[in-house]
Amino acid sequence: MTIHPFPPSSQLVAERLAQEFAETAAERDKAGGTPKRERDRLRESGLLAMSVPTEYGGGGASWPETMLAVRTIARADSSVAHVFGFHHLLVATVRLFGSESQMEALYRPTVAQNWFWGNALNPLDKRTVAAPDGVGWVWNGVKSFCSGAADSDILVASALSSVDGKLMVAVTPSDRAGITIHHDWDNMGQRQTDSGSVAFQDLKVNPDDLLTTPGPLGSIFASLRPCLAQLILVNVFLGIAEGAFEEAKRYTLSKSRPWGTSGAAAASDDPYILRHYGELWLALEGARLLADRAADVFQQSWDLGDDLTARQRGETSLAVAAAKVSATKNGLDVVQRMFEVMGASATAAHFDFDRYWRNLRTHTLHDPVDYKLKELGEWALCDTIPTPTFYS
Amino acid sequence: MTIHPFPPSSQLVAERLAQEFAETAAERDKAGGTPKRERDRLRESGLLAMSVPTEYGGGGASWPETMLAVRTIARADSSVAHVFGFHHLLVATVRLFGSESQMEALYRPTVAQNWFWGNALNPLDKRTVAAPDGVGWVWNGVKSFCSGAADSDILVASALSSVDGKLMVAVTPSDRAGITIHHDWDNMGQRQTDSGSVAFQDLKVNPDDLLTTPGPLGSIFASLRPCLAQLILVNVFLGIAEGAFEEAKRYTLSKSRPWGTSGAAAASDDPYILRHYGELWLALEGARLLADRAADVFQQSWDLGDDLTARQRGETSLAVAAAKVSATKNGLDVVQRMFEVMGASATAAHFDFDRYWRNLRTHTLHDPVDYKLKELGEWALCDTIPTPTFYS
Amino acid sequence: MTIHPFPPSSQLVAERLAQEFAETAAERDKAGGTPKRERDRLRESGLLAMSVPTEYGGGGASWPETMLAVRTIARADSSVAHVFGFHHLLVATVRLFGSESQMEALYRPTVAQNWFWGNALNPLDKRTVAAPDGVGWVWNGVKSFCSGAADSDILVASALSSVDGKLMVAVTPSDRAGITIHHDWDNMGQRQTDSGSVAFQDLKVNPDDLLTTPGPLGSIFASLRPCLAQLILVNVFLGIAEGAFEEAKRYTLSKSRPWGTSGAAAASDDPYILRHYGELWLALEGARLLADRAADVFQQSWDLGDDLTARQRGETSLAVAAAKVSATKNGLDVVQRMFEVMGASATAAHFDFDRYWRNLRTHTLHDPVDYKLKELGEWALCDTIPTPTFYS
Amino acid sequence: MTIHPFPPSSQLVAERLAQEFAETAAERDKAGGTPKRERDRLRESGLLAMSVPTEYGGGGASWPETMLAVRTIARADSSVAHVFGFHHLLVATVRLFGSESQMEALYRPTVAQNWFWGNALNPLDKRTVAAPDGVGWVWNGVKSFCSGAADSDILVASALSSVDGKLMVAVTPSDRAGITIHHDWDNMGQRQTDSGSVAFQDLKVNPDDLLTTPGPLGSIFASLRPCLAQLILVNVFLGIAEGAFEEAKRYTLSKSRPWGTSGAAAASDDPYILRHYGELWLALEGARLLADRAADVFQQSWDLGDDLTARQRGETSLAVAAAKVSATKNGLDVVQRMFEVMGASATAAHFDFDRYWRNLRTHTLHDPVDYKLKELGEWALCDTIPTPTFYS
Repeated sequence: MTIHPFPPSSQLVAERLAQEFAETAAERDKAGGTPKRERDRLRESGLLAMSVPTEYGGGGASWPETMLAVRTIARADSSVAHVFGFHHLLVATVRLFGSESQMEALYRPTVAQNWFWGNALNPLDKRTVAAPDGVGWVWNGVKSFCSGAADSDILVASALSSVDGKLMVAVTPSDRAGITIHHDWDNMGQRQTDSGSVAFQDLKVNPDDLLTTPGPLGSIFASLRPCLAQLILVNVFLGIAEGAFEEAKRYTLSKSRPWGTSGAAAASDDPYILRHYGELWLALEGARLLADRAADVFQQSWDLGDDLTARQRGETSLAVAAAKVSATKNGLDVVQRMFEVMGASATAAHFDFDRYWRNLRTHTLHDPVDYKLKELGEWALCDTIPTPTFYS
Repeated sequence: MTIHPFPPSSQLVAERLAQEFAETAAERDKAGGTPKRERDRLRESGLLAMSVPTEYGGGGASWPETMLAVRTIARADSSVAHVFGFHHLLVATVRLFGSESQMEALYRPTVAQNWFWGNALNPLDKRTVAAPDGVGWVWNGVKSFCSGAADSDILVASALSSVDGKLMVAVTPSDRAGITIHHDWDNMGQRQTDSGSVAFQDLKVNPDDLLTTPGPLGSIFASLRPCLAQLILVNVFLGIAEGAFEEAKRYTLSKSRPWGTSGAAAASDDPYILRHYGELWLALEGARLLADRAADVFQQSWDLGDDLTARQRGETSLAVAAAKVSATKNGLDVVQRMFEVMGASATAAHFDFDRYWRNLRTHTLHDPVDYKLKELGEWALCDTIPTPTFYS
Repeated sequence: MTIHPFPPSSQLVAERLAQEFAETAAERDKAGGTPKRERDRLRESGLLAMSVPTEYGGGGASWPETMLAVRTIARADSSVAHVFGFHHLLVATVRLFGSESQMEALYRPTVAQNWFWGNALNPLDKRTVAAPDGVGWVWNGVKSFCSGAADSDILVASALSSVDGKLMVAVTPSDRAGITIHHDWDNMGQRQTDSGSVAFQDLKVNPDDLLTTPGPLGSIFASLRPCLAQLILVNVFLGIAEGAFEEAKRYTLSKSRPWGTSGAAAASDDPYILRHYGELWLALEGARLLADRAADVFQQSWDLGDDLTARQRGETSLAVAAAKVSATKNGLDVVQRMFEVMGASATAAHFDFDRYWRNLRTHTLHDPVDYKLKELGEWALCDTIPTPTFYS
Repeated sequence: MTIHPFPPSSQLVAERLAQEFAETAAERDKAGGTPKRERDRLRESGLLAMSVPTEYGGGGASWPETMLAVRTIARADSSVAHVFGFHHLLVATVRLFGSESQMEALYRPTVAQNWFWGNALNPLDKRTVAAPDGVGWVWNGVKSFCSGAADSDILVASALSSVDGKLMVAVTPSDRAGITIHHDWDNMGQRQTDSGSVAFQDLKVNPDDLLTTPGPLGSIFASLRPCLAQLILVNVFLGIAEGAFEEAKRYTLSKSRPWGTSGAAAASDDPYILRHYGELWLALEGARLLADRAADVFQQSWDLGDDLTARQRGETSLAVAAAKVSATKNGLDVVQRMFEVMGASATAAHFDFDRYWRNLRTHTLHDPVDYKLKELGEWALCDTIPTPTFYS
């Protein structure tokens, strides 16, 4: 297993992988389950280390670069893109919530052994409790929506303390005794994200495993985490819509027939089809500019580290929220209307074109768009920045 | 097998069947194939004869009544509703294109033996050719999109004459030698409509089998057929959206949780969720009124028979077109946004809630909405009625 | 002055007047002020008595008929339509809030002398106070938004009791000592509605002047008043949009030139212009059906009198709310987009085509559409009917 | 009269002027006519020379800087912004269509004497004809839509050659004998743009006055002119919407009252009002990013001069088209919905808030958005760039 050097080649690697994943995306969508082969291809590609700082041997890619890689893969396969993006979020979580020595301890093997990080951090699910056992803690309970836990090498997990009810976040090897990763994800979309449940039974968590300096949302800088999580969603949404748009174009140009009363020689001459394409392209272009701007703003905030002010953090959150609302709304428009520019024959099951809608519709429900719009409104009208939570 | 008397009970029968079909709709959507049990339940119910005139022993239901039955079944199962609706279209085709004696010959056994009529009439597919053989005709070729041909008792089929290229429409028993009904329908939506292909190999078609008095679109009255076909689509669309809406309500009331920052005690108190429900209900209500009005206008035109003027026929077509555009646009809005008022957990595969979108998205591609809008515009601006075709 | 008999001729009279008002509508919009001549033409026409029950010598028109007359006049002149519609609301207020003997006392001269009723009832403006003076009451204070008070013969006015703070509603001649009608209405739209202020200075109000049996919203039947008020708004909105649509058609057909790259011989051949007309017509048609249905539902509730149940009253309110949201949204779409199908030259001031937008935009702000949608949502989701207020 | 040095101060100057113009914008909108005082303030400010290259003593501002100045002034006064923007277009026309020596001859006095350039170039109006007179040409005829001709110092005008029908473009002092500038502009919006007619009667046009090297759209670089014209429109549209948005905010915060049943303590706490603000802000933000990107792309193309390829020119045109469609659609949404977050009292005539809608609605009709969308579609689907015309 060789790590490819990057950047600048990471985007090329991402594009090559996307092309490869595209070939089996429809069939794997139908099968569901773990995209083991694709996950291993990501491991081999070196892309898992792209966001790790260079001082730990990583690629040192900027967040805009990493987001572009996520979006690129999402064009072909949004399940893989989601766990790939969240992998980088989990890697970043050590920097955000933890200490220098934890970065040292965790980033070097991430690079050397191409670790794929998995998620078992879900603050909305309060069923896992951590009890002190003298030395460290013993965790018991269940977590839902644990995307990418299956086939992961290492997990970021959360529990509530039995002492004070506070949220604790730990990093543990995925195969530590007491962890059972269930293969119980079966959804209408994002079918290969393995976003099922993880059970903890008398899991030993050592003090060193806990990210407590500064801990979850424990500083202004730490509270950038939800911004990054949401930024990844934005790029997955956008990638899905871009993939759908390209698929539609290929179909219209190669297979669609002009409507009888249109007077057009080809579907691509039909004035209404052309107008639809103009509208859909514009919808995507606007969402793209907002997503790229959000990534730039995020990078600036990231670079400030502990100099980041609450106001700057708030504006970062709002730039990401703006991009998310746009990618949601315009993306859904693309995956719904793409069929109108292809025609009835494009609904044949073997194309699996409905997966674009199923994937985007599923993923855009992560947290409600209405409250993003409300936050944008509070800011635009009252100059109020959002209170940091795991979603804002 | 007993035929239930109707109306007035036909709507009750339809509602009871819808309730029954709803229980297995999700599972049958996944399985695809022929809904044999449900088709037989329709046979038993007597609803297949509801639109047959009373003089032939049928139910004599009006078209608004028949459309309501179609819509009712579509709330639970839009595949079954489609073939049920098209059954009535095919029955009506004898009245529209054929003679009194053909009605006599075909309607009595339809009632007595609960025939389920199947479709092999598709003017856009020009691959089937009829050649004269001295007495009648010999048909050879293939037809696609033959909804409800599988498990049908009798078929309405079309071919192009080898003599003059004209469209011929015939009625033949589905099991006549020379007819092969393929089970090759596999689509993202409307999965149990069996809209696959039918092959004709040296099929003998007798002069009596042909509907030639006045023949396809052979009179103003005959050209009501596409209006009826489109009206059935409208009611299937609307039924899908109504079913989705009811499903969403049940979920929001019983399962959705209020969003953390909403301050609402229950999802049903959330101001944004309430506004969404208001918008979606209004979207449906508008579509419903247009659909009901179109059915009334259609019935008036139907009742005129050969006294129907071209202008009245045009206005009927436009009333149906208006209803169709509205049901398409507003229905898609409902099946897309229903998830926003339910939340992420509603995407679990076992609910199969995406079938509402898949079914509606598939079916609304039957023919392009853009050209319906153009026809409405030509009428609104220039007072021009649409030229009758198999779609207008 | 002769009263024309009606119905059935009231609609013809309304159409004739609308045609007449249309000739000067643009110029009077610019001038603002009181449309004295048009008000007198309404007085002469007999239409002011159309909704008065036949037992008092009135026209006995149904509410759907009266609403159609309002809409018809609004197509030409929405200011006049508004005061005409509210005149009928004020006439109905005696039936809703008052006694048989008050009807007798007020309806007969309304018919005989063609009284034009004016509005000084505005529950949101709490500046007018009624103090007891032994026999009756003395009113002092100001009221804003008193549409149609100028040039009125009789006023329906409201005050808050100094004793218990309750809303009191009285009917008084407009020229009674103590009433000053200010000509201070100067708005961007609905410029001839005279919706300015009325001042009361030591106005004597006798017990007989007060509508107290059952009083404002004093019974379920009495609480139909806001439904009627809103229904009038619906029909004014719709009339504005219909008038705009007809104006646009005339312009496109007679003056618009095809765009250079369109390839169309005339603007009315342009595929995009035709599609716009299709969409706009459909928007209007949907709004029209909802408005007509609301009027029918209202009439049914009206006919029930004190047998009306709270549930029926609630459903009436919701039917009107649905129509109002639709007329608002679709109407605004028409008055905004009408320019896109006419072109730049249609912005010349002498056409005054912007008045459609200014009138509709102004009038649709009467009370917020968001809360109508919320009420519809509460009903659709939770089966809750709106609490009667002066707006719901 | 002192010229202020710029940039970097040009934006500050523009902001200061905008603030000043805002104070009288409503009153001047009502008056119409020539904003003589404001034009003179622009002359004094030095902003008229901001886009003139430094080698001729001008400000040497980039196009993004100039566009920002246009947008800034449009926030306060879109009529003045339009003629200010078109002034720079006309200045640039010498560079685009003319020769080095013409730049030398025209740019120096533009800077030294603060010339305000006016428009009499309108290729759609073919009524002005140029006939050869041995030495040069004699022009006769009329031009419509001559924005900023009144009170201009110098005119760019067009005529059709009587010899070959070709479009000729000339630069002449506005007071040359034979030119009559009519004050006949009276429109619903953009009321102080003086976009009336100019008459030519035996106007002498010398060979030196003609821009013939390379002449109108005479090279790829020259065909950037319509891109610049459209980019100015984009920034005027956006400025109007931004101005409206700020106005609405001030009003909601200072004057709007919460709706009775909202439960909100202030209008700015109402969940629906906040959501509206979120949506409107997002609409503007997306349009802003597209506009800024278009200005950057335009600048890059401008900098290439005659190295500009047809493909690059096409992509510039498309970037501008995208921005224009977005600014049109989203801008109209802002100026229409701003009233919903302010409430009914905001329609009082003295606020003149309807001018935002009237100005934007008028100006966005310059050329049809449908054909911009078609061009975007042809490009997105078929990879086709638009054919240069005076509008694409």
